[in-house]
Amino acid sequence: MNKDEIKNLLECVKNNKVNIEEALEKLEDLPFKDLGFAKIDNHREIRVGYPEVIYCEGKTVDQVRDIVKFMITKNNNILGTRATEEMYNAVKEICEEAEYNKLGRTITIKKKEQLLTDSYIAIVAAGTSDLPVVEEAYETAKILGNRVERIIDVGVAGIHRLFSRLDDIRGAKVVIVIAGMEGALASVIGGLVDKPVIAVPTSVGYGANFGGISALLSMLNSCASGVSVVNIDNGFGAAYNASIINKL
Amino acid sequence: MNKDEIKNLLECVKNNKVNIEEALEKLEDLPFKDLGFAKIDNHREIRVGYPEVIYCEGKTVDQVRDIVKFMITKNNNILGTRATEEMYNAVKEICEEAEYNKLGRTITIKKKEQLLTDSYIAIVAAGTSDLPVVEEAYETAKILGNRVERIIDVGVAGIHRLFSRLDDIRGAKVVIVIAGMEGALASVIGGLVDKPVIAVPTSVGYGANFGGISALLSMLNSCASGVSVVNIDNGFGAAYNASIINKL
Amino acid sequence: MNKDEIKNLLECVKNNKVNIEEALEKLEDLPFKDLGFAKIDNHREIRVGYPEVIYCEGKTVDQVRDIVKFMITKNNNILGTRATEEMYNAVKEICEEAEYNKLGRTITIKKKEQLLTDSYIAIVAAGTSDLPVVEEAYETAKILGNRVERIIDVGVAGIHRLFSRLDDIRGAKVVIVIAGMEGALASVIGGLVDKPVIAVPTSVGYGANFGGISALLSMLNSCASGVSVVNIDNGFGAAYNASIINKL
Amino acid sequence: MNKDEIKNLLECVKNNKVNIEEALEKLEDLPFKDLGFAKIDNHREIRVGYPEVIYCEGKTVDQVRDIVKFMITKNNNILGTRATEEMYNAVKEICEEAEYNKLGRTITIKKKEQLLTDSYIAIVAAGTSDLPVVEEAYETAKILGNRVERIIDVGVAGIHRLFSRLDDIRGAKVVIVIAGMEGALASVIGGLVDKPVIAVPTSVGYGANFGGISALLSMLNSCASGVSVVNIDNGFGAAYNASIINKL
Amino acid sequence: MNKDEIKNLLECVKNNKVNIEEALEKLEDLPFKDLGFAKIDNHREIRVGYPEVIYCEGKTVDQVRDIVKFMITKNNNILGTRATEEMYNAVKEICEEAEYNKLGRTITIKKKEQLLTDSYIAIVAAGTSDLPVVEEAYETAKILGNRVERIIDVGVAGIHRLFSRLDDIRGAKVVIVIAGMEGALASVIGGLVDKPVIAVPTSVGYGANFGGISALLSMLNSCASGVSVVNIDNGFGAAYNASIINKL
Amino acid sequence: MNKDEIKNLLECVKNNKVNIEEALEKLEDLPFKDLGFAKIDNHREIRVGYPEVIYCEGKTVDQVRDIVKFMITKNNNILGTRATEEMYNAVKEICEEAEYNKLGRTITIKKKEQLLTDSYIAIVAAGTSDLPVVEEAYETAKILGNRVERIIDVGVAGIHRLFSRLDDIRGAKVVIVIAGMEGALASVIGGLVDKPVIAVPTSVGYGANFGGISALLSMLNSCASGVSVVNIDNGFGAAYNASIINKL
Amino acid sequence: MNKDEIKNLLECVKNNKVNIEEALEKLEDLPFKDLGFAKIDNHREIRVGYPEVIYCEGKTVDQVRDIVKFMITKNNNILGTRATEEMYNAVKEICEEAEYNKLGRTITIKKKEQLLTDSYIAIVAAGTSDLPVVEEAYETAKILGNRVERIIDVGVAGIHRLFSRLDDIRGAKVVIVIAGMEGALASVIGGLVDKPVIAVPTSVGYGANFGGISALLSMLNSCASGVSVVNIDNGFGAAYNASIINKL
Amino acid sequence: MNKDEIKNLLECVKNNKVNIEEALEKLEDLPFKDLGFAKIDNHREIRVGYPEVIYCEGKTVDQVRDIVKFMITKNNNILGTRATEEMYNAVKEICEEAEYNKLGRTITIKKKEQLLTDSYIAIVAAGTSDLPVVEEAYETAKILGNRVERIIDVGVAGIHRLFSRLDDIRGAKVVIVIAGMEGALASVIGGLVDKPVIAVPTSVGYGANFGGISALLSMLNSCASGVSVVNIDNGFGAAYNASIINKL
Repeated sequence: MNKDEIKNLLECVKNNKVNIEEALEKLEDLPFKDLGFAKIDNHREIRVGYPEVIYCEGKTVDQVRDIVKFMITKNNNILGTRATEEMYNAVKEICEEAEYNKLGRTITIKKKEQLLTDSYIAIVAAGTSDLPVVEEAYETAKILGNRVERIIDVGVAGIHRLFSRLDDIRGAKVVIVIAGMEGALASVIGGLVDKPVIAVPTSVGYGANFGGISALLSMLNSCASGVSVVNIDNGFGAAYNASIINKL
Repeated sequence: MNKDEIKNLLECVKNNKVNIEEALEKLEDLPFKDLGFAKIDNHREIRVGYPEVIYCEGKTVDQVRDIVKFMITKNNNILGTRATEEMYNAVKEICEEAEYNKLGRTITIKKKEQLLTDSYIAIVAAGTSDLPVVEEAYETAKILGNRVERIIDVGVAGIHRLFSRLDDIRGAKVVIVIAGMEGALASVIGGLVDKPVIAVPTSVGYGANFGGISALLSMLNSCASGVSVVNIDNGFGAAYNASIINKL
Repeated sequence: MNKDEIKNLLECVKNNKVNIEEALEKLEDLPFKDLGFAKIDNHREIRVGYPEVIYCEGKTVDQVRDIVKFMITKNNNILGTRATEEMYNAVKEICEEAEYNKLGRTITIKKKEQLLTDSYIAIVAAGTSDLPVVEEAYETAKILGNRVERIIDVGVAGIHRLFSRLDDIRGAKVVIVIAGMEGALASVIGGLVDKPVIAVPTSVGYGANFGGISALLSMLNSCASGVSVVNIDNGFGAAYNASIINKL
Repeated sequence: MNKDEIKNLLECVKNNKVNIEEALEKLEDLPFKDLGFAKIDNHREIRVGYPEVIYCEGKTVDQVRDIVKFMITKNNNILGTRATEEMYNAVKEICEEAEYNKLGRTITIKKKEQLLTDSYIAIVAAGTSDLPVVEEAYETAKILGNRVERIIDVGVAGIHRLFSRLDDIRGAKVVIVIAGMEGALASVIGGLVDKPVIAVPTSVGYGANFGGISALLSMLNSCASGVSVVNIDNGFGAAYNASIINKL
Repeated sequence: MNKDEIKNLLECVKNNKVNIEEALEKLEDLPFKDLGFAKIDNHREIRVGYPEVIYCEGKTVDQVRDIVKFMITKNNNILGTRATEEMYNAVKEICEEAEYNKLGRTITIKKKEQLLTDSYIAIVAAGTSDLPVVEEAYETAKILGNRVERIIDVGVAGIHRLFSRLDDIRGAKVVIVIAGMEGALASVIGGLVDKPVIAVPTSVGYGANFGGISALLSMLNSCASGVSVVNIDNGFGAAYNASIINKL
Repeated sequence: MNKDEIKNLLECVKNNKVNIEEALEKLEDLPFKDLGFAKIDNHREIRVGYPEVIYCEGKTVDQVRDIVKFMITKNNNILGTRATEEMYNAVKEICEEAEYNKLGRTITIKKKEQLLTDSYIAIVAAGTSDLPVVEEAYETAKILGNRVERIIDVGVAGIHRLFSRLDDIRGAKVVIVIAGMEGALASVIGGLVDKPVIAVPTSVGYGANFGGISALLSMLNSCASGVSVVNIDNGFGAAYNASIINKL
Repeated sequence: MNKDEIKNLLECVKNNKVNIEEALEKLEDLPFKDLGFAKIDNHREIRVGYPEVIYCEGKTVDQVRDIVKFMITKNNNILGTRATEEMYNAVKEICEEAEYNKLGRTITIKKKEQLLTDSYIAIVAAGTSDLPVVEEAYETAKILGNRVERIIDVGVAGIHRLFSRLDDIRGAKVVIVIAGMEGALASVIGGLVDKPVIAVPTSVGYGANFGGISALLSMLNSCASGVSVVNIDNGFGAAYNASIINKL
Repeated sequence: MNKDEIKNLLECVKNNKVNIEEALEKLEDLPFKDLGFAKIDNHREIRVGYPEVIYCEGKTVDQVRDIVKFMITKNNNILGTRATEEMYNAVKEICEEAEYNKLGRTITIKKKEQLLTDSYIAIVAAGTSDLPVVEEAYETAKILGNRVERIIDVGVAGIHRLFSRLDDIRGAKVVIVIAGMEGALASVIGGLVDKPVIAVPTSVGYGANFGGISALLSMLNSCASGVSVVNIDNGFGAAYNASIINKL
């Protein structure tokens, strides 16, 4: 409700076209509506094809199933992250279309078809042990309606493998780089492409890796300029971010 | 040099249109040219208006002046970050157009006019003490050819000030959020806009702030999904990143 | 035993109303009684309705049951924190009234009715995964005799939900804010209320959350002024603290 | 502006007692006023005697003087923290009443007399090297209108000194404990009083003290229950917090 | 073999009382014997009653039993630390006298009686959860031939309990203080006794305790002067150390 | 394919000995071959006796077996590190020659005999609890074709044992030092030999050992000059490194 | 005042040898005197020759001079640690006997002669850069009345130098080991002597030394059993501790 | 003195060719000589051309000059690291040949010519800000008698520059990689060469670089196998290490 609408309402009140009770009701909502709060609250659901997201970690199997049960009544697509196989089985019982990505630990439910974007997100990963994060990012990006290209096992210790896939990486509108250990891949790719690079450190490694801190610090200190970073193992966050950029 | 070009060259060799020495010379360059290395190397300069960047920290005044001296022969725009006033004075002597942003510690030299983007980057900051980082980001974004909007002093401790500027923030194509202390601003804005948010933790604060770690961890752990993070105080990196996105 | 009492005693000795052995005995206790040590030692139990507290973590089921067995002879209310269900079952066998809060992992035994405070403590939490800490705080505050109001799932990523509950938060005499991840909620609420805010960082989150350090640092560095902090996941400590303030 | 006031305004519009432009102007403020934002924004100044606060660290002498210049037009009391002597001298020139606490590094300007609270805040400190934080807390508490009692040099290494002041500590409504090194004082006092204890770790110490982390961790892990913690060296925050509690 | 002995040997060679081969053999051992290496190597076993020590953590049950099997042939007392009950059972089968301290996780085998020291070691602990470390220290000190006094549950949160045991603490020749959480007990006792205090931080606590770092830092930063520190949970090391001092 | 080979090919094309399609195919590989990428990629396998390495941690039993199945077709030697016994059993079924080192957790498959180096690698370890890392290093060094000498249990707490083995250590061409706790052994040996010393910190220890950080920092800060360090517990990396040096 | 003295006093009261006012006055001090608090408070000064200690860091030159001025009236010996040369000069003006140890940064004032202990403290240091800590320990030990032996520059990188001084080290009653970098010296000496070893990590070193943490962790994790640790660079604390032990 | 020499000596004693006093004197040195301690002690100086090394940091100008004064009497080459220009000037006065590398902060004095190795050490660095460490390593390697090749400014952000120098890197016998920020260069080179790679993290960078920890962790966690690491900024250590390997 903008200034003109309020003015208009006041004139209606003055001219008895709207009675005071009605006007009062409309104005009471003002703070939220005008500030766009309601829009924020609902903006995800109302855009066609946007999924509802459940972060399953720390929830019980029953809780996850109940949340899904409620959500499917709204007929939206649904994404569950960090889901166990047991959770999936419980969800499967109440929803035939549910699918499970075992590596990525995601449950996806497609209620509506989505138009895919023309441009694509490239998900590039250093090693096979980064695959769980790759898959979480992949499922997230797909259910958000993006075309996605996975480019796996191109770590810098065998850099020629990376070069052989360079065209696929450069063709993307936004690049997600997933790497553990020393996370050097983000810097190397950051120097080779001129697209936004979202780096995901993974907790892969051992010894002084400290559950991903090594890769996290590497990526934050990247000598290449177009690199930003999300939390350790946060494939979902990277893909969500990439999706916003891919749809700009 | 693509497949067809190589084929063509080979036919020229066969037909004696090109002699073997000439062909050899061309093929020798192949690895770099074909892989696009040269393109990478030069891609910044060849796009009109892209500046050359000098990271001045740790360099002597003489070194900075000499680098600028060499660069201005190429007639590109130039951006020096982390520059002292003394460096600026030395540069000013050899280059009249040089300008200095004292807070942001940047030297900028505009040799060419740039077309500005239609869309703009919003730079949002929590407090006045974050201004040095704001200004570094601002100068970077501008010389990279972006329209920029600064929205300062909207920290979460007085959240109504943030709301009064919400439209300006939402109007941007990409948002840079700069905050020190507990860095909560990134999460709050991340929950209010549906554009990519690039968060810059600053070293502002005291006590258990640890030179910006507090804000850095906050931003990496943001409960809002569209937020990615660059290094502490890295206004340049955030703006470079934002510029890539803004020009997609 | 204050100065006058000692003087009186000495006079009794002088006047043979008290013999030396008796006087000696009384004076021997002096250091403790006079310094109020005994008062300290007993001050919790003697105030009506104050519970005895057992920190169950690291104790065996048998130990917990035995401690309870001993305590119930004193007819006080009892609070066990960090208790497993197995512990509860053992306690239940010897004490019918024992109740268990599964999420909060508390055992409570009410032997006496308490008068509730007029003013209330608001317990505000960012997300559903903070619930275990919420419940520990809730049970603690209640058995300490406070009115309590829980306001859940008002994290800053959807800030309008917080605003819709603002009146309830502002109505409290003291506010406990429980949040994990980046803990921004403490700063936002600290800026919106003028009551003491006790912040509890939780270990909820993943990646660079480091078991709650991220939220802990955020809260310590809060840009809002009325915020103090207790240990990670320490719902009991926050509620104990809040109760002292609420009863001032 | 509450519901009744809006209703009233609408009736005035209807009855032509207020014209539309005037009504519009009033309603435009609605989002802020209704949500109480304005109250928040202004709540500090409007309560009699509440000072304006300037955090001087990182500001230039000119900036501090200019901010004070502006503030004194509003005739409020003013508190500047982390102020250098040079800043004070600049302020003194434009404001005769300005006073400087050299140890505490505070500038205070009293424009209005305040009623002092009946109850008092006890500020207890372990050693003489904690005095700068003590004085910052002291000046803050005083200008906020509290009676304050300082109890210095009662560190646990000579615990009898602490006991000789125990009555003064117990007499307070809220206790601020300031300690560096191992910060044990907070736990000892926490076990001796039944008032809220706000602990301030200081950066006093050397070696593995790490700028106050040692004391900070001690205080967060206090085995005594009524202790909450503010940031390292944050005397202002502790006093602000204590003042809120003292005025409940 | 000292200088005189070598001289003597040489004279025997000269006088044909010892042939060259024999002399050679004796001199070959020289480096070790003369430097006292052998003494070092054997110094623990040769002193009457000194036990052999096995650090069981990380060893298999079979390994522990085999080591004990070998050791008992030498007829020394034996101390196994960090031993599981399963290890004890295996040892018990081959050695009737073996005893197990379940809390302290020690196996002790007494083959020889020891004279106890006149002076005693006081082991003082803050809380019941520190008991495993107390018991490890206790068993170690005892099998090393010391009189030991345990003083438990005298944490600083109820400081009068500590005072009631002060005489027992002051009577010791050396004091071991064991405390987790904020480890304040070491400082308080350090200020109350003029005997060497060996502080053992324990990993007891939660949240920002970080597995004992909180107590470790506290103790290293103790404001009392006679305190030195051993590793977290290292009851054995503290008792070994105390025993050396107790026997000076 | 070097310059001469390309020249030759071009002449063949010119002389119709090679048709254009064939030449094109060969040249298409050029970027990799010429840059030596292929050599890199294949350099390990083509040198006689070099094993293929599988890092088994984080892989499923099936994955490990399938990788081995594929590898044995190439008839190379194979080394699997961080392998469980279950993995070994699965591999054993498809490959009779597979051997398992239980302590070192390695699977080795010898398909070809290797010539051993004349010079040897000394693997020196402080304590028996470092044995798993010793064995991983040992198996790695052996399958890479090195003579290896293990010198165990020569920690600095009984330094004479070290001296009695000094000749064996000094006889090596390169020395691997493996130590946990305080890692002092690396410095002591670094001061006693003039060969390259590769230090491996192990996670052995407890308390403030922090999973090997204590030893890692010690080794990085070694006061002896010829010491370089690999990651915590990284026996494989140390041996791989040592093997490169041993074969120089 | 012990039980007999109180009894005696009471009898004096009864017999009118002491009037009630006088008795009251004496008994009022009871809590402190009886608990031995006064003894604690004064125990340092009353033992002959015990110095008063001033920790000068963070104090102004004037403060140090004033404290000394007051202290010398009591005719005790005085030790000032962490004193600047400027402080010394100010003290020198008011006290001729004051001496300054430039390296150790100590001021010492000898008012009384002390009997030296028969046994001695050995102060052993790894390198010349550890000398400031050595000298602080040395001056402290001396003014506390101990014979002291300094054994410098015997770091483990040239271990034969250590062995050539071994007799001097073993002859001591207690050994202080001072080392930076990797602090290995503490473990080596701990394995060579059977006296209490007090280890002082120093902040000497660079890179991943982290201001002494490397040596601190090394010493805490020492594989030798008789080693306890004081804070980084804390030469005073080590010597104070050693003095207590040396005088047992 | 080996077994045969001792045998011979004994025979000389027997045959009166050597008297007992002389024999005694020789045997007294035995422990050191036989164990090779003396060799260790002297091994650096006696090999032709090996320099004496002074670590100048923390020494005064006078100390450095005096040490040099003493050393030049032995006519060896001398290397001073971490030397200030002022130190150099003082040294220059007493020794004409002294040379100073301003960037590398080294003083070198060549008294003897050295034969250079045939093989060379490659020193590869990521950026110009790593030059101080490069130069320290370079001067160290040279005065130790190695051929050295510097390859600068080949950071991974512009990876084609690295490839254009690959032959020079591969031609070396051992490679030193020096890099700050994220230190990715070590991994990339580790994957491209099959020579030992010694990685030196530098403190170059800002924000979450933490004085080189970011690069240090990266290098320790390198996904390429032939990489070992020395301390942050430790160019001397890397070159010393490389020299040992280069001379194998």
